[in-house]
Amino acid sequence: MKKHNFYAGPSIMSQFTIEETAKAVHNFADMGLSILEISHRSKQFQAVMDETVALFKELLEIPEGYSVLFLGGGASLQFAMVPMNMLSKKAAYLDTGVWASKAIKEAKLFGDVDIVASSKDKNYTYIPKDFVVPADVDYFHYTSNNTIYGTELRKDPEVGARLIADMSSDIFSRPVDISKYDLIYGGAQKNLAPSGVTFVIVKDDALGHVDRPIPTMLDYRTHVKKGSMFNTPPVLPIFSALQTLKYYKQLGGIREIEKMDIAKAETLYNAIDGSKMFVATVPNHEDRSIMNVCFVMKPEYKELEKEFIDFATEKGMVGIKGHRDVGGFRASLYNALPMESVNALVAAMKEFEAKH
Amino acid sequence: MKKHNFYAGPSIMSQFTIEETAKAVHNFADMGLSILEISHRSKQFQAVMDETVALFKELLEIPEGYSVLFLGGGASLQFAMVPMNMLSKKAAYLDTGVWASKAIKEAKLFGDVDIVASSKDKNYTYIPKDFVVPADVDYFHYTSNNTIYGTELRKDPEVGARLIADMSSDIFSRPVDISKYDLIYGGAQKNLAPSGVTFVIVKDDALGHVDRPIPTMLDYRTHVKKGSMFNTPPVLPIFSALQTLKYYKQLGGIREIEKMDIAKAETLYNAIDGSKMFVATVPNHEDRSIMNVCFVMKPEYKELEKEFIDFATEKGMVGIKGHRDVGGFRASLYNALPMESVNALVAAMKEFEAKH
Repeated sequence: MKKHNFYAGPSIMSQFTIEETAKAVHNFADMGLSILEISHRSKQFQAVMDETVALFKELLEIPEGYSVLFLGGGASLQFAMVPMNMLSKKAAYLDTGVWASKAIKEAKLFGDVDIVASSKDKNYTYIPKDFVVPADVDYFHYTSNNTIYGTELRKDPEVGARLIADMSSDIFSRPVDISKYDLIYGGAQKNLAPSGVTFVIVKDDALGHVDRPIPTMLDYRTHVKKGSMFNTPPVLPIFSALQTLKYYKQLGGIREIEKMDIAKAETLYNAIDGSKMFVATVPNHEDRSIMNVCFVMKPEYKELEKEFIDFATEKGMVGIKGHRDVGGFRASLYNALPMESVNALVAAMKEFEAKH
Repeated sequence: MKKHNFYAGPSIMSQFTIEETAKAVHNFADMGLSILEISHRSKQFQAVMDETVALFKELLEIPEGYSVLFLGGGASLQFAMVPMNMLSKKAAYLDTGVWASKAIKEAKLFGDVDIVASSKDKNYTYIPKDFVVPADVDYFHYTSNNTIYGTELRKDPEVGARLIADMSSDIFSRPVDISKYDLIYGGAQKNLAPSGVTFVIVKDDALGHVDRPIPTMLDYRTHVKKGSMFNTPPVLPIFSALQTLKYYKQLGGIREIEKMDIAKAETLYNAIDGSKMFVATVPNHEDRSIMNVCFVMKPEYKELEKEFIDFATEKGMVGIKGHRDVGGFRASLYNALPMESVNALVAAMKEFEAKH
């Protein structure tokens, strides 16, 4: 039985990505070799890299003057690379959760950090709205989707500073006005590829404005100049990313994907809001993530949470246990998750509620 | 037809690694999910990580007091991480090629570098012998195998300083006396796994002796403390590494592998040394790599090099073109390459020589 995969990340991949990757593990590009054992300098892999960059740019409508990089090390390494490359004196950060806080911690090693707003007072269950970004900062950084708490900022913010975002968990779920940004980064393991590769979209003229010496591998300019091939890139994760991008194009592109994502999220939020037993942890509808839906049982049913996890597990659902910082449940509805899985979860919730 | 894969890296993987990885892309650990889409926090993946570390330690006979890490970013990132974590004032480096030089370049960002010897005068075709490591350095760093030039230092050096080695391209090809080292690192994509993961063997008490602030992801202590799970690790490459380690254990461990590697290298070097047409680029036998065999055509046959590449390609050989810094040919004989492939290359050389 194929499971209903609600993992928060690494998370569900499309069947197309899985099947094409499996084929390439046996025989990549008809070379008679596995994707696991081919040179990244082979013309066949160079073609994969080129097509991945081109399709990534096409689907996100990335304008001229930007580079797309595929690096190792994870978004967590970007928390340090961003300030190392772009923070001269002071940067502004929005604190919307654990990942934002981790980015802030690293930035402080490189300069002053102005935390313009934080939703920590309510365990990060909302997105702060009334904040002012000082005009004298090198950049403003925010996390667009907060997987742990199920909050999301789905509109490109208007600020009078260079804009940088961690879009690890909601890239490819809505059109983004890339021209507003100097840099966007993210781990691939939600809407793009298996873990092991990190994407960076960077405006070329945003680089080279800091004075500190930067180790070669941590300098974005190295990877821009070498087309992500300065050193051996993570070959298989990049190949898998290309399969996902091809699948997205088949689906009709990001606007079509966004409609599907919204429909899935609405189905689940409506079921939660209409339930006597479950309640969403994010009260404000506009702050609710369409990628990660967090919910708990109302106080009077609290002792049934463990039983519901077991109930859902028996019905083939994995990954619905909430993060320990929030408790309860979290259903991650990334692009590859079919509506069928959302319907199965909603049906399980109703059945469980009727039983009690 | 399965090719004879002589790529320098990423390079040939065992059929066992390829088959087991392909199976896991379809269904990992009987979870009904692909290895591409499972949480790194699942108990099934934690078991993979634990077993990979344990088997890595067992096969290399790593003593107590050392940690084994699996990180992203490649050995090139280690060129910076090593001095960032371990260079206070001055370090000694042995310059045996492009990769050693790259490591030296990064170290200079963090302190003084004493290049104790270099073989650059002869295009790195030998391993310098008579060098002295000053007693006051923080560590001595060398590259054990130089893929581009086909040289290798197959004996753990005796120096009066902390010892650090880049063993990217010859780890698991001979027993190493780990107790002599403070740190050993390497990209996995030669004798271990597909690209995307880097191993680090580090003596726990070698860390924490520098004063500079280190970004969290670049601090070895972060990964020691979290068992390489501080952030999402490269899941599939680590799974594949485990398959390779299991395969090595089946083969009888490193001493058995070393015998096979030496037999393969001797077969090829003997054919080259006995040829009228071909000549090895490394004259000194004890400096010759058993992983990468570099050879060219003698001056009188030089114009036939391109023809031999085509000839070998027709016979199903890939990756035998030499690096541009050396020219001619390079046959990489990593652990997974069968003797059959070496014999096929030797036969092709003899046939070609007879033809001309």
